[in-house]
Amino acid sequence: MLQKSPGVFLENAWYAAALSRELNATDMLARKLLNRSVLLYRTRDGEAVAIQDRCPHRFVPLHLGKREGDEVVCPYHGLKFNHQGACTHNPHGNKAIPKAANVTAYTLLERYGFVWIWFGDQPADPTKLPDYSPLDVGHENALAFTYMHTKANYELIIDNVMDLSHVDHLHSEIISTRGQLTPLIPEVRDEAGVISARWEWKQTPGMLIFNQFLPKPDDEARMFVQVNWAAPANIQLTIGATQGNGPLELDATVGQYDLHTVTPETETTTHYWFATRRNHLVEDGAFNQMKIEAMHGAFANEDLPLLEAVESEMAGREFFSMSPVLMSNDIAPVKVRRRLREMIDAQAN
Amino acid sequence: MLQKSPGVFLENAWYAAALSRELNATDMLARKLLNRSVLLYRTRDGEAVAIQDRCPHRFVPLHLGKREGDEVVCPYHGLKFNHQGACTHNPHGNKAIPKAANVTAYTLLERYGFVWIWFGDQPADPTKLPDYSPLDVGHENALAFTYMHTKANYELIIDNVMDLSHVDHLHSEIISTRGQLTPLIPEVRDEAGVISARWEWKQTPGMLIFNQFLPKPDDEARMFVQVNWAAPANIQLTIGATQGNGPLELDATVGQYDLHTVTPETETTTHYWFATRRNHLVEDGAFNQMKIEAMHGAFANEDLPLLEAVESEMAGREFFSMSPVLMSNDIAPVKVRRRLREMIDAQAN
Amino acid sequence: MLQKSPGVFLENAWYAAALSRELNATDMLARKLLNRSVLLYRTRDGEAVAIQDRCPHRFVPLHLGKREGDEVVCPYHGLKFNHQGACTHNPHGNKAIPKAANVTAYTLLERYGFVWIWFGDQPADPTKLPDYSPLDVGHENALAFTYMHTKANYELIIDNVMDLSHVDHLHSEIISTRGQLTPLIPEVRDEAGVISARWEWKQTPGMLIFNQFLPKPDDEARMFVQVNWAAPANIQLTIGATQGNGPLELDATVGQYDLHTVTPETETTTHYWFATRRNHLVEDGAFNQMKIEAMHGAFANEDLPLLEAVESEMAGREFFSMSPVLMSNDIAPVKVRRRLREMIDAQAN
Repeated sequence: MLQKSPGVFLENAWYAAALSRELNATDMLARKLLNRSVLLYRTRDGEAVAIQDRCPHRFVPLHLGKREGDEVVCPYHGLKFNHQGACTHNPHGNKAIPKAANVTAYTLLERYGFVWIWFGDQPADPTKLPDYSPLDVGHENALAFTYMHTKANYELIIDNVMDLSHVDHLHSEIISTRGQLTPLIPEVRDEAGVISARWEWKQTPGMLIFNQFLPKPDDEARMFVQVNWAAPANIQLTIGATQGNGPLELDATVGQYDLHTVTPETETTTHYWFATRRNHLVEDGAFNQMKIEAMHGAFANEDLPLLEAVESEMAGREFFSMSPVLMSNDIAPVKVRRRLREMIDAQAN
Repeated sequence: MLQKSPGVFLENAWYAAALSRELNATDMLARKLLNRSVLLYRTRDGEAVAIQDRCPHRFVPLHLGKREGDEVVCPYHGLKFNHQGACTHNPHGNKAIPKAANVTAYTLLERYGFVWIWFGDQPADPTKLPDYSPLDVGHENALAFTYMHTKANYELIIDNVMDLSHVDHLHSEIISTRGQLTPLIPEVRDEAGVISARWEWKQTPGMLIFNQFLPKPDDEARMFVQVNWAAPANIQLTIGATQGNGPLELDATVGQYDLHTVTPETETTTHYWFATRRNHLVEDGAFNQMKIEAMHGAFANEDLPLLEAVESEMAGREFFSMSPVLMSNDIAPVKVRRRLREMIDAQAN
Repeated sequence: MLQKSPGVFLENAWYAAALSRELNATDMLARKLLNRSVLLYRTRDGEAVAIQDRCPHRFVPLHLGKREGDEVVCPYHGLKFNHQGACTHNPHGNKAIPKAANVTAYTLLERYGFVWIWFGDQPADPTKLPDYSPLDVGHENALAFTYMHTKANYELIIDNVMDLSHVDHLHSEIISTRGQLTPLIPEVRDEAGVISARWEWKQTPGMLIFNQFLPKPDDEARMFVQVNWAAPANIQLTIGATQGNGPLELDATVGQYDLHTVTPETETTTHYWFATRRNHLVEDGAFNQMKIEAMHGAFANEDLPLLEAVESEMAGREFFSMSPVLMSNDIAPVKVRRRLREMIDAQAN
């Protein structure tokens, strides 16, 4: 797989590279991100760092080597690199370090349980990472993360989450919306770089992941869900259920604050992460574990096989070139596709 | 795999899509034919139908969905299609059905135990399907079908069946022709769109699938075989053995009436069907089963590995571009290759 | 895989095609060499022969057929070929042998336990095969061969052997050089078409494959190793250890005379052979077996996974186009890469 030319992905943006918990002070994590081979690790003082996973001498993936403190030694000829990508030791001949003997170091930002990476040629800009700080606030047993490798282009996953009417059709009992979303035309907004869609509805009983925490589990519940896309590939989702008359917002409902974030591995494969913080039964670790496994199962068993079948059917063709029939439920995902394309095209100039 | 441009295959023609027995009123059959994803099923009143196996909305293969009566529901967003390919239900928003929300429906013709499909842009013409009605006439236990998926271009299979001299060399005991075909130059005819080759010979004993039904199984038998190719990819084969002085034709011999029909899946993979009706021991179902398994074994174990090795060696190159050395036994298959190429070239204009 | 155009490999040169012991008077060996399908066998009078492994009629790989004496019969239609590639029998029709019905025969040279093959358009020139006759001289139990199929371009293997400083870093105990090679700048020579590199050093204890044969196994030893590349892809390596004051040459040390020779299968896969003759414990067959397995293990478990990872990371790009950082240890392998490129470019004119 060749490193791709600019124009394929939005480069001046933050992508999730790993979960914070994946990195530690002794191991190394190799991951392909946006067609690049990246080596991630954590220094002994706790900083997450990332360098190109390829020795500039003979192109050996550095993850085959070993860490020496905060540095990495190539297994082939012993060149050593620090986490800024500089070669710090050449054991050969006169031991002079060649000027060019360095690897690209990537700027990281560690927030919200994720390590975010910046590949673009513009200076990494922390203000371009959206604020997902609600993930950080609360009991640790109310927060969970999961990961799915997906054999589909990342935009197919964004389409999926930006049009939740599919839940009525594709998903099974635990997150069933009982046909209530499909007749609605969601409220779509486009403000400050965030494209959002919002549905409000009633269902009987309430969504099964929430109804047991409502006063009358078998009765009708008022529900809402809102998705907020921000470039390049983040969708923050808030969902809640209530049987009272209060406002449909997280603080007034039994609900959760989620983040779906995806990072292209290649044009046809994607790293898909999901983070969720709920506002109920927040101290119950066993429930937390059970619930993230159930959510993971819904995505992995119901969404992903379908998206992978679409990828296979599309066979590398561009989405709009295939003349999709678009409907009212496509307003938000199409807005996102067009915005993303504009941003990618703009960076090519 | 992209849908291929016109010119690769003959489009205005009937191809076998399935065996009749593969379709029923409750299931769906997904099959790639001529690089197209096709969904086949049978309506409740028994009609075989076929539509494009791709929702026009988000390109989900429809076979992942479910049947509702004679209609098919997309699993992703609930669009419903009938067997004419029209969208009959859109559950979204105002429920208006978008004008473009339909899928291609393919014309089928069900005959001779097969469901035949027409992909071309000209009106489907039933007269272009050759008459294989002898398959229909007789006891059900004298008729059998089998199927082989083959990792080779379909023309390699046609070559194989149009030059039966290979039986002398490739095939083992049960259909051995004992070296008698190879010295012959078959009689080749080209009449009314059918290219045929015919061999007549003697062998001792007769071919083992027939000799047990001759008066003196161990003695010499007179035999004949004739293959009749009709576009695009059908070869009707009649073979018989006798120890009498009668004419070498099916009615006067112990023999069978077969159809080899192949349909390109892609340029390099093929659906290969074989149908056979014998004129002896016609009521014996156990014999019928044993014999079709033996014939299947001969093709699957002897012909196909060889043809797949040729496909691999050709590596996508066009047959004539590789300057094959052609001999007297190649007259019929070369005629077929040239006729097929003329027909494909003609359709491109 | 298409047969590649000239310019990819050096054609007018000898490549190892097989070990002598792989060929016998009854079997056939099919091997892809320089993107060509080749059939190797030995005639009844002991001559190693090679012809194109593809019938010129219908492109069937001939190794699927059978030998008849010194000839090969195609399994599909019975054409027979001798080891000069001439068709000697056509059983079809009038049995005339078509003029063009022959396959390419390749010139072989059997020396040093190998069968060497010549593909080029210039006359095969035995003087272009380097003299590796020391492999032939001595007890049979002091000589061993091994083979490794490698998923990497052959030049990556040449790079590996021409820069032995990697032994300090990559290899484990049995051939460890204990960091002594890396600080040295090897003596590189370029004489009479042979590019060589030589290291001399001391280590304690001596290399473990030798030190048990030295007077004081645990003490320091003086060592040398020299690699001699000759086109296209042969590296003769001599290595020895001593605790005396004599010259660092094979006859005055405990050591061995090796040949690494590689043959491209395709651009990205390689046949890698290793031959070795030692000058100590020469009659011990069990030791011989143990030692070749240990050497094989070092190459197969330590070098090859790394080279295959490099191949994957390079993804088909040309080595210099990726701007490798080159150091003093790269002098010899870079000289070889440049010389080989010059020779390949010269043949294209």
